[in-house]
Amino acid sequence: MKVGFIGLGRMGSGMAANLLAAGHEVTVYNRTARNAQALIQRGARVAPRVADACGGDAVATMLADDAALQSVAFGEDGIITNLRTGAIHVSMSTISVALSERLAAVHADAGQRFVAAPVFGRPDAAASAKLYIVAAGATDAVDACSPLFDAMAQKTFRFGSEPSGANLVKLSGNFLIAATIEALGEAFALVGIDRRRYLEFLTSTLFTAPLYNTYGEAIVEERFEPADFRAALGGKDIRLALAAAETLRVPMPLGSLLRDRFLTLFAHGGEALDWSAIARLAAADAGQDSIKH
Amino acid sequence: MKVGFIGLGRMGSGMAANLLAAGHEVTVYNRTARNAQALIQRGARVAPRVADACGGDAVATMLADDAALQSVAFGEDGIITNLRTGAIHVSMSTISVALSERLAAVHADAGQRFVAAPVFGRPDAAASAKLYIVAAGATDAVDACSPLFDAMAQKTFRFGSEPSGANLVKLSGNFLIAATIEALGEAFALVGIDRRRYLEFLTSTLFTAPLYNTYGEAIVEERFEPADFRAALGGKDIRLALAAAETLRVPMPLGSLLRDRFLTLFAHGGEALDWSAIARLAAADAGQDSIKH
Amino acid sequence: MKVGFIGLGRMGSGMAANLLAAGHEVTVYNRTARNAQALIQRGARVAPRVADACGGDAVATMLADDAALQSVAFGEDGIITNLRTGAIHVSMSTISVALSERLAAVHADAGQRFVAAPVFGRPDAAASAKLYIVAAGATDAVDACSPLFDAMAQKTFRFGSEPSGANLVKLSGNFLIAATIEALGEAFALVGIDRRRYLEFLTSTLFTAPLYNTYGEAIVEERFEPADFRAALGGKDIRLALAAAETLRVPMPLGSLLRDRFLTLFAHGGEALDWSAIARLAAADAGQDSIKH
Amino acid sequence: MKVGFIGLGRMGSGMAANLLAAGHEVTVYNRTARNAQALIQRGARVAPRVADACGGDAVATMLADDAALQSVAFGEDGIITNLRTGAIHVSMSTISVALSERLAAVHADAGQRFVAAPVFGRPDAAASAKLYIVAAGATDAVDACSPLFDAMAQKTFRFGSEPSGANLVKLSGNFLIAATIEALGEAFALVGIDRRRYLEFLTSTLFTAPLYNTYGEAIVEERFEPADFRAALGGKDIRLALAAAETLRVPMPLGSLLRDRFLTLFAHGGEALDWSAIARLAAADAGQDSIKH
Repeated sequence: MKVGFIGLGRMGSGMAANLLAAGHEVTVYNRTARNAQALIQRGARVAPRVADACGGDAVATMLADDAALQSVAFGEDGIITNLRTGAIHVSMSTISVALSERLAAVHADAGQRFVAAPVFGRPDAAASAKLYIVAAGATDAVDACSPLFDAMAQKTFRFGSEPSGANLVKLSGNFLIAATIEALGEAFALVGIDRRRYLEFLTSTLFTAPLYNTYGEAIVEERFEPADFRAALGGKDIRLALAAAETLRVPMPLGSLLRDRFLTLFAHGGEALDWSAIARLAAADAGQDSIKH
Repeated sequence: MKVGFIGLGRMGSGMAANLLAAGHEVTVYNRTARNAQALIQRGARVAPRVADACGGDAVATMLADDAALQSVAFGEDGIITNLRTGAIHVSMSTISVALSERLAAVHADAGQRFVAAPVFGRPDAAASAKLYIVAAGATDAVDACSPLFDAMAQKTFRFGSEPSGANLVKLSGNFLIAATIEALGEAFALVGIDRRRYLEFLTSTLFTAPLYNTYGEAIVEERFEPADFRAALGGKDIRLALAAAETLRVPMPLGSLLRDRFLTLFAHGGEALDWSAIARLAAADAGQDSIKH
Repeated sequence: MKVGFIGLGRMGSGMAANLLAAGHEVTVYNRTARNAQALIQRGARVAPRVADACGGDAVATMLADDAALQSVAFGEDGIITNLRTGAIHVSMSTISVALSERLAAVHADAGQRFVAAPVFGRPDAAASAKLYIVAAGATDAVDACSPLFDAMAQKTFRFGSEPSGANLVKLSGNFLIAATIEALGEAFALVGIDRRRYLEFLTSTLFTAPLYNTYGEAIVEERFEPADFRAALGGKDIRLALAAAETLRVPMPLGSLLRDRFLTLFAHGGEALDWSAIARLAAADAGQDSIKH
Repeated sequence: MKVGFIGLGRMGSGMAANLLAAGHEVTVYNRTARNAQALIQRGARVAPRVADACGGDAVATMLADDAALQSVAFGEDGIITNLRTGAIHVSMSTISVALSERLAAVHADAGQRFVAAPVFGRPDAAASAKLYIVAAGATDAVDACSPLFDAMAQKTFRFGSEPSGANLVKLSGNFLIAATIEALGEAFALVGIDRRRYLEFLTSTLFTAPLYNTYGEAIVEERFEPADFRAALGGKDIRLALAAAETLRVPMPLGSLLRDRFLTLFAHGGEALDWSAIARLAAADAGQDSIKH
């Protein structure tokens, strides 16, 4: 397919590379041109402006937050103004349910199609085409994106025709991961000693999912830098999950606890740490740890 | 080994059967004699009184709670009075850290040995010798119990020489499971629709540990009866975890939330449901569900 | 003073009447003209459009929320476009800190002055000029508004030169009231019986502030209609307090609990009840009460 | 009346002095004899043993906690063994509902009467006979104690015939005070600046109860020593309130938050501070304060 790709951060670079590797004709755009160099060598064309990435069958966006996506979607140079009739905007960023609903409406008004397809996986999964994609939107539009998804993901899950449903699933997933981190943080603070053996016990019995190993290891080693996923972004996602929950009138007390944990971490300068650093706060409250000192 | 086994509930019956199958000489005691019949056919002797189960190298106890264990440990007819010098009391129940510490001291005073060896696994795992055992106590005592553990468990994890350390690990494990149930309950309440597909997505991507499948299935089907593990026991374990945390001065806000969830469930008559029924409370608060109605 | 007054709801009507009674020349505007009738008889002029209320020394706004204030502040017919240079916009609504900051900046750009002066008190206090006003803004601007404040309030408290500081104080005050309601709700659920005597005890010993009496009475009588202050507005204020707290990186776990309480109330159809109805949720969770049934 | 008084701490000394001042014949007992000296000069007799304080119509106990009361109530030298038939044990300590129920049963079995009459007020109120007493028990027994209550309190509130009802009211009262402290702590952390003016605003408008002034002052001044009421005791009372709530199946999420706050304070060495020191934790989480550092 002839496709634009906007957003060449740690995730987007790998994803665009896999689109190229699968034979798609890719025009990339990034706010800072530097990140595009490696992709040019693999055959990407570079769009000097957002509008120049909107000439194909679809344009995929992979950006940090609502504000970044809005800045490329709206305005004279933006996607909505420049995408041709019937073409598809595939939004792969983790954004709010509200923005997803707004984009669905605006693209429909413009005669364009909108698919929400947020991803699960860290940069190494993006680079190795091992992402999981959660996609929602009109059937024909999601079908049309399948070759793209197949190039980037090990599996794609489809959730109905409302694009924002996929965003809600994505946010709920990050809520579940953060909940796991908090639970581990409290459990380690309770058990106190023999941390490595305790982790080995957990991960070889009931808690065999790899994420317990990933985050448990960070907790045992107290190693939260460099960040695989920055706390600033993790806290944002919890905020977006709670915002969606508020609209839907779903009280989430564990979600509220996570929100407070991230605020505490931020108040002590932890935005750039990995989001698993919230696990330290239970230990800090118990006087075992030094993150707040 | 020549061993007594006290407590033939859904877990203990299977465990005692596996001791017999491994060739140990087992004398069983249960408050109500009925449960012993199947074991007699497999070669068990029946002790009419607790004291009669205390004549061997060790006596294992597998009971519902602190009160049940205290009733067989103390008193004229109890384990402490009747176990011979140097013999071992292997406490496999999920009990409080405080009772474990007390038993360790009392047995030491009586010239006996005490090992805490609580188990992870449901009745089917007990029957098929697939339990996980967490053992702590003096090295020689835990070593001496190894043939028993090998007959009942797929793996035994050793945690230091303080018996109560094993009880703390056990309680922390049940806390982690309950935390997972709560997190799933909130996530399902947030996502709302497509529950089965949502579960399939979760369990085939990030949350591959079997417990997500077990509890997610119960949530999707709203099937909390019959109970594999009764809420009354689950709530008790959260209470014991928080009691240990209080002694250790470890605030556990997620633990506190779980405590409140179980109290809410109990206030609405849910003691006999499976403990995964607390997952329904998030939906009930969101007006989606009927457990409180 | 020659002053406009925009927003003639239950609070604004009484406030505008007191401005007239104090001899000020008042031009009123309300979205629906009906509410203006009683004020016309007291000497008010009616502005057919917002712009027509902006011709004097100052214009006061008393509206339900951010959206309502934005709709009269911005746009061709709005306050910012029509207020003369040097005139003052006195914002008395309970609005977000963010909107207050934005209005301060926009009015400054337009050569106008902006004072935030939210009020404490129920409609009867507004009618009898017994409000408390919390005012913040440039000293000269707040000074200039003193005659207006004196006509409407029993006392005015000044908080610095940043208008949004007054909004933050207002939101914190509503947080404290809601916290009191929650605490009373839990205490009544705990004590269970002798509710009237218990209230008498509380209000005649340690908790002598009138608000304990007001809300305690509602709890004892289970009378949450008609609403003096609707839960929908109370929940909004908690949301605004938490939004300000998030910007300031202040975790407020009690605030989070209140947010979840309001969401639970809304999910069960309680938006139009008095906000003290959240006190019933503790009883409902304890199985004592029927709000969720 | 001829009465024994056991427990001459900061509260009990003042209470016993007021009994003497009202003309009662008082025999005092304290674990350490030193505290009795001032009372001897006012006419008290000193009991060398607990039993020696049990010869009159009634014996009042005013002790720190359950353990202290149990140590004087039970045993050969204790109140139950030595109080004469029909005499009254007036328990004025803040104790658990469970111990109160146990004492009621044991005294009834011994042909004695039991009244629970916990008090509200700080040591200065005890010294000046300005306490509030909450009394419960059989009507005749509470009637018989009236002369004692009148000598110590400005007012006595009666709550039914179950003694433990008074203990529940007492615990709920301390819960409400601690809830107020937490709410103030979060509000001050949110508002941030102008702390003294903010307190003045609060206490002269909606929050006129003296306790807002008392605790607000401590927060503004960050002065938590010397303790009027030690955090160790405050945390104990929250624990007892939650224990009673658990038995009654009343979830108290704000109570749980308070429990976690006290644990955090204790984990950082704050047991000897005034209990209002928990207000600092919201500021500490927001990075504004140094209690945890």
